Amino acid sequence: MTTYCYEYPRPALTVDCVVFGHRQEGKLELLLIERRLEPFRGAWALPGGFVHMDETTDEAARRELAEETGLDGVFLEQLYTFGAVDRDPRDRVVTVAHYALVRPDKVELVAGSDAVSARWFPVDALPELAFDHARIVELAVERLRQQVRYRPIGFELLPEKFTLGALQRLYEAVLGRELDKRNFRRVISRMDILDELDELETGVSHRPSRLYRFNRKAYQRLLRQGFNFEI
Amino acid sequence: MTTYCYEYPRPALTVDCVVFGHRQEGKLELLLIERRLEPFRGAWALPGGFVHMDETTDEAARRELAEETGLDGVFLEQLYTFGAVDRDPRDRVVTVAHYALVRPDKVELVAGSDAVSARWFPVDALPELAFDHARIVELAVERLRQQVRYRPIGFELLPEKFTLGALQRLYEAVLGRELDKRNFRRVISRMDILDELDELETGVSHRPSRLYRFNRKAYQRLLRQGFNFEI
Repeated sequence: MTTYCYEYPRPALTVDCVVFGHRQEGKLELLLIERRLEPFRGAWALPGGFVHMDETTDEAARRELAEETGLDGVFLEQLYTFGAVDRDPRDRVVTVAHYALVRPDKVELVAGSDAVSARWFPVDALPELAFDHARIVELAVERLRQQVRYRPIGFELLPEKFTLGALQRLYEAVLGRELDKRNFRRVISRMDILDELDELETGVSHRPSRLYRFNRKAYQRLLRQGFNFEI
Repeated sequence: MTTYCYEYPRPALTVDCVVFGHRQEGKLELLLIERRLEPFRGAWALPGGFVHMDETTDEAARRELAEETGLDGVFLEQLYTFGAVDRDPRDRVVTVAHYALVRPDKVELVAGSDAVSARWFPVDALPELAFDHARIVELAVERLRQQVRYRPIGFELLPEKFTLGALQRLYEAVLGRELDKRNFRRVISRMDILDELDELETGVSHRPSRLYRFNRKAYQRLLRQGFNFEI
């Protein structure tokens, strides 16, 4: 067996991926894998694994996500590095956590590599997680909830044309609470990022609602500038 | 020589500290050390070093800062982990960057360990930096400028009682640009975090200005809730 030797001891370095999903009208979901190997064999965990020497931490996160869940080309942002001494029972392991938001209905899950299976769970009904992954998820949810207060979301998560109701459901899913409809519409209108279309939704039994579209330019401007979404 | 051997190669893990300073009426400053050892021997760099196996990454950052600059007990926040493959000429080294804001006139610098010297530089007149430290500083300045738009600053950086002019100078130092006085006062007043005191500043040649104090409760509330400082 080849071994790699160093003058000083080194922690192992891993990446983990917190991938949130949102389906129209649904709750916030989280992508988990079932571990093939010890420790925590058979337990649910975040997709992730060891960083290779010839890849950046971002590249490692994308690779591990693709290998274990089949999700390819997902844009992951770095979340936080977890460096507690005893977070892995095997060895000192420091992990760089990443996160992303995707539409589950737009991707196909294919478990592979160290994952026996991969599936979506509602964030408010997660199974017990391996390692300190529950803590990582907690921080990611917190960060996501902070971020929707400063940056617009939804461009990647809603179909091109959507109702204000669908947008409100997205914010409610992320924030984990119901929002007042009138208040929500006032705040969204103040953000000034939607183009009102001359179209109504179709295929609904109730009175059809008007459709809207994100104004890409205004959306990008708000992404850069930020705002305060007080609701 | 003892060596430490592993089945797979491991990146070395370090921490780096971006410590900003603000003196009353002054520009934003940055704490740098002069490197004692190769690579980049004699060059200026961020305080930092290797993470020990028995300490968290946060503890490593505090320890390295204390050893190299004499700054003890500084509250450092994690900034970002830099994981590019070739950022260190010796070896694959991943670094967890941290940052903090302190008052240079309240601390004494004592260079030690791998630092020949330690001193403050104005952020807009930095020397050439070792490794990718210029990039780390750039991200830290960006983060700091974003953060002052969402969270109040100043509690740790101003004396207990201060003038609105001193507070404006602090925001100008962080943002790196002059602010309109009337506009600044309107925004600060809307934040509602200052107690107006029945005292004037003393020992000035111009007409003395009124003194203010942070209302700790309101300050803490805004820290949690955030706001949008549009100026």
